[in-house]
Amino acid sequence: MGKNENYVKDITNIEEDFAQWYTDIVIKAELADYSEVKGFIAYRPYGYALWENIQKYVDAEFKKRGVENIALPMLMPEHYLTTEKEHVEGFAPEVAWVTFGGGKELEERLYIRPTSEPMFCRMYARWVKSWRDLPMKYNQWCNVLRWEKETRPILRSREFFWQEGHTMHATEQEARELTLEMLNVYADTIENFLAIPVTKGQKTNLEKFAGAVDTYTVETLMHDGKALQAGTSHYLGQNFTKPFGVKFQNKEGKEEYAYNTSWGVSTRLIGAIIMAHGDNRGLKLPPKVAPIQAVIVPIQMQKDGVLEKCQEVFNNLKETFRMKLDDRDQYSPGYKFNDWEMRGIPVRIEMGPRDIENNKCIVVRRDTAEKIEVSLDELNEKLAWLMEDIQQNMYNMCLENMKNKTSEAHNMEEFEKNLNENQGYIKAMWCGDDACEEHIHDVTGAKSRCIPFQEEKIDDKCVVCGKPAKHMVMWGRQY
Amino acid sequence: MGKNENYVKDITNIEEDFAQWYTDIVIKAELADYSEVKGFIAYRPYGYALWENIQKYVDAEFKKRGVENIALPMLMPEHYLTTEKEHVEGFAPEVAWVTFGGGKELEERLYIRPTSEPMFCRMYARWVKSWRDLPMKYNQWCNVLRWEKETRPILRSREFFWQEGHTMHATEQEARELTLEMLNVYADTIENFLAIPVTKGQKTNLEKFAGAVDTYTVETLMHDGKALQAGTSHYLGQNFTKPFGVKFQNKEGKEEYAYNTSWGVSTRLIGAIIMAHGDNRGLKLPPKVAPIQAVIVPIQMQKDGVLEKCQEVFNNLKETFRMKLDDRDQYSPGYKFNDWEMRGIPVRIEMGPRDIENNKCIVVRRDTAEKIEVSLDELNEKLAWLMEDIQQNMYNMCLENMKNKTSEAHNMEEFEKNLNENQGYIKAMWCGDDACEEHIHDVTGAKSRCIPFQEEKIDDKCVVCGKPAKHMVMWGRQY
Repeated sequence: MGKNENYVKDITNIEEDFAQWYTDIVIKAELADYSEVKGFIAYRPYGYALWENIQKYVDAEFKKRGVENIALPMLMPEHYLTTEKEHVEGFAPEVAWVTFGGGKELEERLYIRPTSEPMFCRMYARWVKSWRDLPMKYNQWCNVLRWEKETRPILRSREFFWQEGHTMHATEQEARELTLEMLNVYADTIENFLAIPVTKGQKTNLEKFAGAVDTYTVETLMHDGKALQAGTSHYLGQNFTKPFGVKFQNKEGKEEYAYNTSWGVSTRLIGAIIMAHGDNRGLKLPPKVAPIQAVIVPIQMQKDGVLEKCQEVFNNLKETFRMKLDDRDQYSPGYKFNDWEMRGIPVRIEMGPRDIENNKCIVVRRDTAEKIEVSLDELNEKLAWLMEDIQQNMYNMCLENMKNKTSEAHNMEEFEKNLNENQGYIKAMWCGDDACEEHIHDVTGAKSRCIPFQEEKIDDKCVVCGKPAKHMVMWGRQY
Repeated sequence: MGKNENYVKDITNIEEDFAQWYTDIVIKAELADYSEVKGFIAYRPYGYALWENIQKYVDAEFKKRGVENIALPMLMPEHYLTTEKEHVEGFAPEVAWVTFGGGKELEERLYIRPTSEPMFCRMYARWVKSWRDLPMKYNQWCNVLRWEKETRPILRSREFFWQEGHTMHATEQEARELTLEMLNVYADTIENFLAIPVTKGQKTNLEKFAGAVDTYTVETLMHDGKALQAGTSHYLGQNFTKPFGVKFQNKEGKEEYAYNTSWGVSTRLIGAIIMAHGDNRGLKLPPKVAPIQAVIVPIQMQKDGVLEKCQEVFNNLKETFRMKLDDRDQYSPGYKFNDWEMRGIPVRIEMGPRDIENNKCIVVRRDTAEKIEVSLDELNEKLAWLMEDIQQNMYNMCLENMKNKTSEAHNMEEFEKNLNENQGYIKAMWCGDDACEEHIHDVTGAKSRCIPFQEEKIDDKCVVCGKPAKHMVMWGRQY
């Protein structure tokens, strides 16, 4: 079949209109649906199961590192928002205000959390007393709300789900180490669990979190060459602990403000899975995160013994793999093949009367469309191998896409030309001035993604002003 | 030690002021803390871990029954609230209104969900098409908000956490069966996981959910003899599916409104654990739900080899039990004993130099205060037995309390006398009239808890009006 052929009816061609292709996948694979409240979506079971799997993985990684879960109020009083100068500038325009409760107008308006630094700090101020209490490493899984103007299902909804970790430390060094430790948890999750390569680095001054001293990021590249910030970890220093009063008595008996971090990943990761891996057949899920890892489609289901044998194989496999047996009688096998491909199930198992007679089945990989004949005696073993291999191959395909879409620019002409031809990441040197960064955005629409930890020196001079360069920066248009 | 002695400083005596005792436990055992927003609390790690354990247990039971998790918007437009007549009367007075978002006044006000029947129905209306799609059994774990006037930490907060299951069925019978199936999940959870006996029954007309056809409940009795409604399951019929338009094509090809249920348990269950089991030493946790099942307290920790041996025992046990080793050097063993008793850890293990020499340790039960000498070789086995035995014994103690505090009343004098002397449940016959039920509440402060599934006929006549009785009802003052 040709490269541009649509395998599934009604899904927009991925190369022609990526944005519409994305929306088609979200709706038709039944990940989520629009609600009647603008910018708010409903997660359907298949989409929410992805989030549950991500939560389970990440939460276990947190707990290994001594992070404990708590839950704080979703509403905060107006004066919390206005206490930290940069924070209010960053978030005030996009909060939602509760003004009435229990039939009465409130004396002080409450805002629904867009993020909870102020609330965490006010609670920590009650809980942290001595250096012996530190570090305190708390996280919450919750909903937050940001009144975005442009919304897109899952990727940018007004309400979204995330975890926000907030920690308190007795020293700057320990807080900075924790900031990077959590960034590494995110990098590991995205690379090894979601099969998407990341670039780790530091955000520039213009792109850092409103209120942070330093922001670190894991950046990913989507199929269309646009970048997606997949997770961030902030060293907040004492920027919040001073105005919100988080003090402790240090070993010398003196009062000191605590050193603070925060870090988060959200349901945007589901958007990343869709856009990094999907193709013209539809969604393509890495086995580790897939809610269904393999589906059995019976062929000539009405024939004696077929469904029974399929059921037997299903029962054998379901302890080891997340399995589905598609015994719907209103659809043909062909319809089912398309349907499950569109939903991104990593492996399809086809079993008809002749296969059963020969004690075998046909296994079809979602990533390569390869068909393999497998003896039923070896199916369990083969599936285990396939899950590993598909996971790895999907990572490799993503990495290949990223490499193909990454280029260097030594001047602005080259920058624009590469970006317009190839989208993707542009590597270019930068003098460190906000003005040059703004210039790039004004001219090309690209923003700095990060100063990668693995810096390369590709030139001496800033790509904009020609002054001596301080850093190599990855640039790109973004989601 | 005398019955009324306070084992832990600063905790109010449970028999003298149960309400203050409760608040002391919540704060001092570090389950939760007040925030600066009235009626909103912060769950601390120990309290939230209880909720996580409950979630894990209940969620697995749901999934066994084919229930799938989804996530719906927390905000709903005003006209959702006003569509179902009883629902709006029940909930309108206690919702919080969002009136501004993104810097602008909203055209239609949005309310934060107090419960999500309208949103579930509007989404189901998009998803349900044919009888083949049914049943659909969806649940969400989320925060909800009810602007209560009187609040009490965990037990009655304005924001609380819960799960709300909402299902759609092709027939009334199937929906009614599901309603009772989920009630049984709750009964099982509360009895077998939380060690609290329940009474299953049906709510009277006055006490049923705003919008339900029938409401079923699992009722529990607290240490002080007041009742706590621990979970409810509603058969909603077509009360919501008609106004919200949830239609399906039935097997005969005709359009029909779906039959609907909803059911929920919340963080109130944590309140039930505290108030059903606690005593003057503090919190008392059933082993199955306890975040820490056993704590090791080293004696003469500074002595050679003590801490090492404790660490070794801890390492051996931690794969099987949720363990804590208390190696804090700023506290004495006596302080630690009190501290962990107050926090309700089911088992304490004491190990000093002499114990270690004799290859043994002292094991102390939280439920009975019994001290047992155990050989280190048998510790694992002994702990496993203890966890079972403590769980069962705590259930039995609760059941005993419930039996002691349940009495019959054949006239109103007896009703009042029993209730005032004994608090607890009153069993009394009822004619079925709202007016008699209201009379009981006006005179005694008690409400009907439920018409138990296991009805007894203790008299012929209504305890209020003397007319022929229809049902035996359990009455009680409530949380």
